[in-house]
Amino acid sequence: MKIKIINPNITLSMTKKIKNIAETLADAKTEIIAVSPMTGPESIECYVDEYLSIPGIIEEVRKGDREEEIDAFIIACFGDPGLYAAREVTMKPVLGIAESAITVAKIIAPYFSILSVLDRSRKITEDLVANYGAKSFCKSIRSTGLEVLEFEKNPEEGFKALFEQGKQAITKDGAECIILGCAGFVNFAESLEKELEVPVLDGVKSSVVIAEALVRLGVKTSKKNSYKSPEKKIIKGFDNIVNVGKMFY
Amino acid sequence: MKIKIINPNITLSMTKKIKNIAETLADAKTEIIAVSPMTGPESIECYVDEYLSIPGIIEEVRKGDREEEIDAFIIACFGDPGLYAAREVTMKPVLGIAESAITVAKIIAPYFSILSVLDRSRKITEDLVANYGAKSFCKSIRSTGLEVLEFEKNPEEGFKALFEQGKQAITKDGAECIILGCAGFVNFAESLEKELEVPVLDGVKSSVVIAEALVRLGVKTSKKNSYKSPEKKIIKGFDNIVNVGKMFY
Amino acid sequence: MKIKIINPNITLSMTKKIKNIAETLADAKTEIIAVSPMTGPESIECYVDEYLSIPGIIEEVRKGDREEEIDAFIIACFGDPGLYAAREVTMKPVLGIAESAITVAKIIAPYFSILSVLDRSRKITEDLVANYGAKSFCKSIRSTGLEVLEFEKNPEEGFKALFEQGKQAITKDGAECIILGCAGFVNFAESLEKELEVPVLDGVKSSVVIAEALVRLGVKTSKKNSYKSPEKKIIKGFDNIVNVGKMFY
Amino acid sequence: MKIKIINPNITLSMTKKIKNIAETLADAKTEIIAVSPMTGPESIECYVDEYLSIPGIIEEVRKGDREEEIDAFIIACFGDPGLYAAREVTMKPVLGIAESAITVAKIIAPYFSILSVLDRSRKITEDLVANYGAKSFCKSIRSTGLEVLEFEKNPEEGFKALFEQGKQAITKDGAECIILGCAGFVNFAESLEKELEVPVLDGVKSSVVIAEALVRLGVKTSKKNSYKSPEKKIIKGFDNIVNVGKMFY
Amino acid sequence: MKIKIINPNITLSMTKKIKNIAETLADAKTEIIAVSPMTGPESIECYVDEYLSIPGIIEEVRKGDREEEIDAFIIACFGDPGLYAAREVTMKPVLGIAESAITVAKIIAPYFSILSVLDRSRKITEDLVANYGAKSFCKSIRSTGLEVLEFEKNPEEGFKALFEQGKQAITKDGAECIILGCAGFVNFAESLEKELEVPVLDGVKSSVVIAEALVRLGVKTSKKNSYKSPEKKIIKGFDNIVNVGKMFY
Amino acid sequence: MKIKIINPNITLSMTKKIKNIAETLADAKTEIIAVSPMTGPESIECYVDEYLSIPGIIEEVRKGDREEEIDAFIIACFGDPGLYAAREVTMKPVLGIAESAITVAKIIAPYFSILSVLDRSRKITEDLVANYGAKSFCKSIRSTGLEVLEFEKNPEEGFKALFEQGKQAITKDGAECIILGCAGFVNFAESLEKELEVPVLDGVKSSVVIAEALVRLGVKTSKKNSYKSPEKKIIKGFDNIVNVGKMFY
Repeated sequence: MKIKIINPNITLSMTKKIKNIAETLADAKTEIIAVSPMTGPESIECYVDEYLSIPGIIEEVRKGDREEEIDAFIIACFGDPGLYAAREVTMKPVLGIAESAITVAKIIAPYFSILSVLDRSRKITEDLVANYGAKSFCKSIRSTGLEVLEFEKNPEEGFKALFEQGKQAITKDGAECIILGCAGFVNFAESLEKELEVPVLDGVKSSVVIAEALVRLGVKTSKKNSYKSPEKKIIKGFDNIVNVGKMFY
Repeated sequence: MKIKIINPNITLSMTKKIKNIAETLADAKTEIIAVSPMTGPESIECYVDEYLSIPGIIEEVRKGDREEEIDAFIIACFGDPGLYAAREVTMKPVLGIAESAITVAKIIAPYFSILSVLDRSRKITEDLVANYGAKSFCKSIRSTGLEVLEFEKNPEEGFKALFEQGKQAITKDGAECIILGCAGFVNFAESLEKELEVPVLDGVKSSVVIAEALVRLGVKTSKKNSYKSPEKKIIKGFDNIVNVGKMFY
Repeated sequence: MKIKIINPNITLSMTKKIKNIAETLADAKTEIIAVSPMTGPESIECYVDEYLSIPGIIEEVRKGDREEEIDAFIIACFGDPGLYAAREVTMKPVLGIAESAITVAKIIAPYFSILSVLDRSRKITEDLVANYGAKSFCKSIRSTGLEVLEFEKNPEEGFKALFEQGKQAITKDGAECIILGCAGFVNFAESLEKELEVPVLDGVKSSVVIAEALVRLGVKTSKKNSYKSPEKKIIKGFDNIVNVGKMFY
Repeated sequence: MKIKIINPNITLSMTKKIKNIAETLADAKTEIIAVSPMTGPESIECYVDEYLSIPGIIEEVRKGDREEEIDAFIIACFGDPGLYAAREVTMKPVLGIAESAITVAKIIAPYFSILSVLDRSRKITEDLVANYGAKSFCKSIRSTGLEVLEFEKNPEEGFKALFEQGKQAITKDGAECIILGCAGFVNFAESLEKELEVPVLDGVKSSVVIAEALVRLGVKTSKKNSYKSPEKKIIKGFDNIVNVGKMFY
Repeated sequence: MKIKIINPNITLSMTKKIKNIAETLADAKTEIIAVSPMTGPESIECYVDEYLSIPGIIEEVRKGDREEEIDAFIIACFGDPGLYAAREVTMKPVLGIAESAITVAKIIAPYFSILSVLDRSRKITEDLVANYGAKSFCKSIRSTGLEVLEFEKNPEEGFKALFEQGKQAITKDGAECIILGCAGFVNFAESLEKELEVPVLDGVKSSVVIAEALVRLGVKTSKKNSYKSPEKKIIKGFDNIVNVGKMFY
Repeated sequence: MKIKIINPNITLSMTKKIKNIAETLADAKTEIIAVSPMTGPESIECYVDEYLSIPGIIEEVRKGDREEEIDAFIIACFGDPGLYAAREVTMKPVLGIAESAITVAKIIAPYFSILSVLDRSRKITEDLVANYGAKSFCKSIRSTGLEVLEFEKNPEEGFKALFEQGKQAITKDGAECIILGCAGFVNFAESLEKELEVPVLDGVKSSVVIAEALVRLGVKTSKKNSYKSPEKKIIKGFDNIVNVGKMFY
């Protein structure tokens, strides 16, 4: 089985970290392919970042579907950018890491909280929780106030900020499970779980096992209406992203 | 890995059918244990049936947790009876088949419909969809008007009824995926999918792969508040169900 | 008129207290019958407790309906355990005390809060409020942190804890009415109302007058679909509860 | 016990009919006072009608509270006009007939439909159902297309129209109980119930027994915030309505 | 273009202030007519006040529509009293100032808070936010604890109270925009915006530009069902308000 | 005042049509600039189309904000693609045409329906209605089954399809106002309104007058959190879209 994880930003150190985590967890027979798109921002913290990452994501899904015999796709950024578009360009299951973490959280706890990066992405996360039908499960979205790349540079400060917000989420907001709201937090999961004494979920790990599950189950994305293949049409630009805008259609 | 599937009714032919399906799908290294509780009704079609099945389910989970080294539990009736109670008596993941089918459906299609048995269980299903946060994903709940055991006796008539309602769900209600709302429908999934041309999901199969996924992921049910172990206390009755009411506490 | 109040736990001192309160309030011509089921836990604080109380509740409703000429039933535990099942086994009105207290609260105040026992039952209460359509009326659910039986032993400490949480509910959460979230709190209602200066409702008292009202109105539970009598079928176990599982069907 | 029923329109034949129904049902010791306000429209079918009935309703509640020793008030028009204002001018319980019918319906059936007069009042009814938290209980609101006063003139045609819509509500929309959405429908309740074979509720009857129940329970409207007495202030006009705008304050 | 602003209370100094603000903002060719109704309270702080203002509002709309060639109407009290009734008596657009402020807020910010007068009107505001579909946009409703006319007398204290609550709304509740919840706050908008560093919206100003926009767009209120003209019928009283209750019909 | 309308697709005939409509409606002193982005698809009918139009939209907003002294922006595709991102790159008001049409509809009618192009974009429209808080106002979303460009080629067939669906929306679904769910439908609005006898709204026209209103009102997009300017960071690709990914930051 081949699972392709697309880290929507172009920071390759993060892509590598994601690959490592995924490989530790995946079945021996599962091949993990982790890539960053050829175009996009170095980190994703706002709507502009998100939208500029999507053309590259679409191309990676297209390539995976047509040229690489991928069995399932994972979009590894907590805003799940381009998730519905990705489902249009392949029949293979496509998962977002926010979607996956929320899916697991709802099974192991009645209430969760999400630890996010900056206040500015609160709306992105809040809308996503609502759209996935998790509003009554989500007790709070709390931000650390640190930027994504800050967590790479000062992991100790990062841990402290996450622990502090996690503690508050549990004692004040009523969370019984914590979701880490950024692919870059994956290394903190284990130690946070020890300290906070509730399950701490990371979306990357959650998505890998669910992707394997869906492949084993043999399900395909429904092509009835919403996720049908895009119609053939003229698209200008995007020639730098090899085939997006040229070859789907 | 050991997965215990509890068919909440005492109809052993159904338990066996469920076991067969689960084994075809499960990983070679996964051991499937399928049981019916020692107490309960022969089929589950109303609230009374559901509640009378739960003490037996609790005991099977308790035994699985304490004596059988089970890694994950599945409650194989579409009403997910006793799900939250089961999560109190073990830290191992516990899944309902309705919960699992809905979980998978939301990933592969934006809208699903549920094909149910009798009109009388509509409220059970509707409440469950709402409680799982799937209200905006669920386009309709349609009943065939046939009783559970009828599908065993007249599979052809059963198929026809399911096909008819599935067709309506897709063309009139806007479903892009069909969920079979009864563990007893599992054998119809494949042929219905062929005829209806949208994914047709069965909860038993969905739950097996998700159970395996959660075990691989290593997550445990949160014991923070809602799903904490029950307090030790005096419980009268239930001596026939070996240990429920005596030994948890 | 005969009203049967079923205290779902087997602590008879509580059953007696409930009977006393109900009798003070009921019409002179109303006969109050208060029972604990023959099976079940000594107190109800979690899902397991709740479900193990239900077979006994069902039997008490059945007996009341077939043998005792009861006119209305009250399930006197704030989780309203088995309420929908009870409605299947009789046409006479069946009320839960949570349902009754919420019903009254919505008429006399725009916003209420619920004072609950332990944090662990928060999900039970939250789901119940949502299922009864009272989400926008309920400003908060606050727990005292004391166990049910503790209130029997240390009524002064119990009162203090309830007062403290009630005060917070009013000043911080915006409650304009307080609901006592446990049948065991009934004796505190009057003094709390005096101290908190907002209406303080107890479910037992609320349910008695509403039960009388429904009997006078002459309404019956709808037997159209959801609350139809259970179908005749084989049920194993429950022989200790005289007739449940044998005689309905 | 004295219950004052305010028929918000000035059609005295309807007021009398309401009084008769109420008296048949009320306890022997309950005195029913039924009035129409001194000002207002002859029937209530739109927002303008509703608002022009409210000053007179307020005055009737004020008078009942200060001069007539009333124990509970009922506003007998299905839009429950002025309900919240009425709660400001007295501590005695005030009930709307829509609120009362919905309250009873939720206890005896999981799903109801409302049979309304004209399409034009659909928004009034829909908002009221939403504001009372009954959205998930209400399967449909169906109009007969006949005006309120038409039902007085052609009761047979009225019955036929109500029966037809009730039938559809049950078979197509999934209602298990019918609510009559107009005080003027009260005489049809019994025969409709016989024909439709589900409970058919009339708000006047429902409100009388609930009003009696609340008086027996001894509860008062919360005066904490929302329903506090209006502040003393200058009000111009309304001198024809004896004291409204002059004497509350 | 002629826009008629109806200040629902009879405090003419406030009507004048509203007219001034509106005129500064309105297009050179727009004529602003600002009135207080002939009947009603001096300020609107509760349900009784609101309902007693509505007959006068209806008459002002009627007169504007039939005798004054008004192109659009604004009801200038934050509870939007009588809005739906006003839409029945004219085809010209009718706006509430709460509706208008919320409309603008949703376009320029994802989350707003409302600064209100007294706690007692919280329910009015909360219901209005829900009915306008702005629940997920509204982070909080905060009251200053000062009465409406207090802000006229002690503007400095008023400003301080508004600033304090605004600050809390932004830092604690997550508001990114502030709505002033009273027509009497209009003079504070500019200085509050400077101090709070987020947009501060006043409903009067918002409604003037939207009214002009709708007139330019040429849209009319739909007369299909809900907002159809009231039927001709007998109405008693209201003769002091020249024509209301006599001439619509 | 300068308003820039961005037609997100690259079909210039449609851009021109939009400009013409806008100019007829706009104030004499308003300058309308209408553009298609340099990159993107020829029509927008699915998620992939939508996302591939957004980088170009962002660049057009950036250029308008920094180089063209634009006062307000309109995104003229019914999915409102990139709306939140556009709000990050300018403080000037940015409107989507779906948002604008819904805004106007809610003021002139209690219930609307949307006439859409293909079934495949149903989810886009449904999510947008939910996210804008218009769920309880929207009675249905109906598709014509014709592709966007089809309406250009066969306007008569297009009209017929729109009329048919509009009729059904009014008589079956309860709509009292129709919203045209595609910028390309703008020429049908007037004749449809005549035939359907309810207001028929087009988003382009609605957005022009609201944009003018907001500019007159002088409001700016809140830069507190969600819509703050994007942080300066490295972005790969998009060099063909002159400055996006290079110059914001």
